[in-house]
Amino acid sequence: MHITPQSALIIVDVQKAIDLPYWGVRNNIDAEMKMRSILEMWRNLGYPIFHIQHNSNEEASGYNPARISHAFKDETVPINGEVVIGKSVHSAFVGTDLTQRLHQLAVDEIFMFGVKTNNSIETSVRHGANLGFDILLIEDACFTHNQKDWNGKLRSAEDVHAMTLSNLEGEYCRVVTSSQVLNAQT
Amino acid sequence: MHITPQSALIIVDVQKAIDLPYWGVRNNIDAEMKMRSILEMWRNLGYPIFHIQHNSNEEASGYNPARISHAFKDETVPINGEVVIGKSVHSAFVGTDLTQRLHQLAVDEIFMFGVKTNNSIETSVRHGANLGFDILLIEDACFTHNQKDWNGKLRSAEDVHAMTLSNLEGEYCRVVTSSQVLNAQT
Repeated sequence: MHITPQSALIIVDVQKAIDLPYWGVRNNIDAEMKMRSILEMWRNLGYPIFHIQHNSNEEASGYNPARISHAFKDETVPINGEVVIGKSVHSAFVGTDLTQRLHQLAVDEIFMFGVKTNNSIETSVRHGANLGFDILLIEDACFTHNQKDWNGKLRSAEDVHAMTLSNLEGEYCRVVTSSQVLNAQT
Repeated sequence: MHITPQSALIIVDVQKAIDLPYWGVRNNIDAEMKMRSILEMWRNLGYPIFHIQHNSNEEASGYNPARISHAFKDETVPINGEVVIGKSVHSAFVGTDLTQRLHQLAVDEIFMFGVKTNNSIETSVRHGANLGFDILLIEDACFTHNQKDWNGKLRSAEDVHAMTLSNLEGEYCRVVTSSQVLNAQT
């Protein structure tokens, strides 16, 4: 793994809303610490950073811009004029200028993390890959929550996370860990 | 459920390649029978039908157009000038004119089935929903195969299928059955 000035970091939906109790039990409880380390790495390198902020149209969502939980989590608050891109659906590439911005910067590799693994992250990875971007998903800087599958069986957050990663690996992205990224050549 | 002239049927990647042994053990062994019944229903109604055909760029893929397995499966072979749209990535909406065609026909509802549940179907449902289409996924006219999750645990095709459906239901589509569709008002 080699991180270059054309390696962009894209952070998806890391807002206070993801901590609301209605989501259920999460995995990767130290994900935010890893998010912060990777974000600091990109800041030190001076390579492109994009903060994706979800602006839900749903009244009851914690991601609705009218709610205090719409704010970024402390670990990933943008600084120094970093680019914030608002979106209102799951894919960071729908209804935004993210694709054009990446092309303008000649980005050939996207490092992505955020929440949640099987929703906006999975949709953004699938879509970005289909648009031709080479994506590295930093899995331990993502998390999700337990949920019932279609047959009514409760699946742990770790199982939901692991199922998404196996859907994505090789087919849509390379799944990597934060330590691999933090120790990569730059 | 009410099926109208603005209800399009989109059939994704139902080609002989999906029967190749390298995929593993599948679920929903009577899916093709249901696919045929639903396709016949749309033909009788005269409502829009789109056949999505995957044209893989990968040499070793059974979906490569140079291979005999690139052909449609018998149950869903297009007839009478039905529209066939080729794609080379997972989403039926990337690199195709499907979105424009749906808008031209004022389609407000998409009924979708095909293969496989957690790959081109899931990507196309996620993307189509984010583009604003109302999608009904006919789950028993889809199937998938067993696969190992990221932790190395082998998951049955039925479990993989059920996990995808729970990711999509409510968030990206309504999950329905073929009998609900076949018995719907038209």
